[in-house]
Amino acid sequence: MATIKDIANKLGISAGTVSKGLNGASDISESMRQAVLDAAVELGYKPKNMQYDKKVCIMVENMNYESIDQFGYEIIAGFERAAARKNYEVTIIPTNLALQTKEQYDTFMLKNSFCGAFLLGFELHDDYVKQLDHTKVPTVLLDNFIADNKQVGYVGTDNYEGIKNAVLHLKSLGHETIAFLNGTKNSMITSKRRDAFIQSMEYANLTPDEKLMAYGHFNEDCAKDHVDYFVKNGATAILCASDLIASGVIKELNNRNLQVPKDISVIGYDDIPLAKYLTPSLTTIRQNRTELGTSAFVLLDSLIHGIHISRIELRPEFILRDSTDQLNERKNRN
Amino acid sequence: MATIKDIANKLGISAGTVSKGLNGASDISESMRQAVLDAAVELGYKPKNMQYDKKVCIMVENMNYESIDQFGYEIIAGFERAAARKNYEVTIIPTNLALQTKEQYDTFMLKNSFCGAFLLGFELHDDYVKQLDHTKVPTVLLDNFIADNKQVGYVGTDNYEGIKNAVLHLKSLGHETIAFLNGTKNSMITSKRRDAFIQSMEYANLTPDEKLMAYGHFNEDCAKDHVDYFVKNGATAILCASDLIASGVIKELNNRNLQVPKDISVIGYDDIPLAKYLTPSLTTIRQNRTELGTSAFVLLDSLIHGIHISRIELRPEFILRDSTDQLNERKNRN
Repeated sequence: MATIKDIANKLGISAGTVSKGLNGASDISESMRQAVLDAAVELGYKPKNMQYDKKVCIMVENMNYESIDQFGYEIIAGFERAAARKNYEVTIIPTNLALQTKEQYDTFMLKNSFCGAFLLGFELHDDYVKQLDHTKVPTVLLDNFIADNKQVGYVGTDNYEGIKNAVLHLKSLGHETIAFLNGTKNSMITSKRRDAFIQSMEYANLTPDEKLMAYGHFNEDCAKDHVDYFVKNGATAILCASDLIASGVIKELNNRNLQVPKDISVIGYDDIPLAKYLTPSLTTIRQNRTELGTSAFVLLDSLIHGIHISRIELRPEFILRDSTDQLNERKNRN
Repeated sequence: MATIKDIANKLGISAGTVSKGLNGASDISESMRQAVLDAAVELGYKPKNMQYDKKVCIMVENMNYESIDQFGYEIIAGFERAAARKNYEVTIIPTNLALQTKEQYDTFMLKNSFCGAFLLGFELHDDYVKQLDHTKVPTVLLDNFIADNKQVGYVGTDNYEGIKNAVLHLKSLGHETIAFLNGTKNSMITSKRRDAFIQSMEYANLTPDEKLMAYGHFNEDCAKDHVDYFVKNGATAILCASDLIASGVIKELNNRNLQVPKDISVIGYDDIPLAKYLTPSLTTIRQNRTELGTSAFVLLDSLIHGIHISRIELRPEFILRDSTDQLNERKNRN
């Protein structure tokens, strides 16, 4: 492992200057500090103090987490509780494109003395995700997988098992023409859920129909762009990649005088708190977010201790409520 | 959760007799004890004493683990060390068909006061594996996945990443006609590795050839049944599903005056201790067995505490040694 002396030699400066750069002293220039940090990252330098070994961060992008009814809240709470039991200090860092372009991921982590990070809500095209191919910092991603870098692990819920059970439930109610309204394109999770939907339909001896599969966004608004087309193409049930999407679908159906579940059945994904308060209450696929947070910490702690877990997947749970019902044959023939 | 009274009511006997049955007292008949245990399992009874919460077992079948050069040794050692740090008591139980037919899995676990188990080396058709579809006992399986039962988790190494890197390595050396000698048919791991081989060949823009893919067994002996056919069909490299298979392949090639790697390249799987002592030393895909054991314990401990992880996968590591080399064009045209 690289030492302060290695960094000094590489830059042709004194070890004292390197220390100042690493410790953020005020009596060296910002450009010198940046040069020290960049060299330290390049050489794979790691601080040796105890505190560094116990400081991690949660970086959050494109995800709400500030109140308990939002998707990220329990994930972060689960992570923080598990981390506290092992005496880690956790800092939450909301990120955005500006932060990511300002500084390399590894440099940011070293500068702030974080020995590991849990990244939530990032997308494949984010700068920091691209840099994870070669990061040396133990990092856990929710719902994104990085191949061939043993410092990075993935935590998520088994998409196939969740969607398979939803499709089998709909089939048991007589539904065969099932639509799937997915989340935002270009994320690992939507591509996995699309595969899972196709495989699940085939497992249930039903035919997945391209006309009934669409990408939307992980919000309510996207429903309005797809509901008419699904209905026109004969969908008697709509499976959605999130509860928010399902909530939007129910609203749009109601606007068209279609009732859920009498005319069309709807299933959500996640079981966020609002799911049971919708009218009708939402049948959905639960991701246990507290367990996701706990598992993310278990994975990060393993990576920090040199155990190279590449993925941890949790069981989904099928939650039966009132938004699904027996296929209404007569109605659907009109 | 069921109580002793529930068991007594179900069987129409006294709570005292139930206690005797559960505690293995000598003054009730064996058939009464069995009836008590069966009813307890059916009702989902769990002992409440502290000791029960910390007693787990490792069941081993078809796997050698008694000396450090055997596949199971470090897995078990890794599990035991992680368990000891959390004050669990671990019992190793070699199993066989007779034990499995004598008693139901859940009954065995209750009778012996184990609150969880790690199962090593079992095959899909084993009675105990079949019973895992509905077990209520937290259970971790190496290399086998059980769908739809949240009490059961799977631990293994990412087969795709390991095989992909082996195939890319061979391609970089000029090999395009690559054979794959798999392990025993009818196990999840061989079917996953077969899929991984086909996907990896396609990823590398090579054509997987059915004539060059065969099931053997996880031992040296199986090599003799396949080597001639692979050679006849033009294989310039043989990827094997275990180091033992690879060792057998090298011997059989030598018996036919073919040299490794000059005439044919060979890659193993696992990196058991013998791999580096073979002649030539074996290029292989390492499964870190200590980490597998540690992760199996992390998973079992999570299940015992109600965190329903369905799978933990570790990173494989590609280990380059002397059994692979540049394609020898001239030799292979002879």
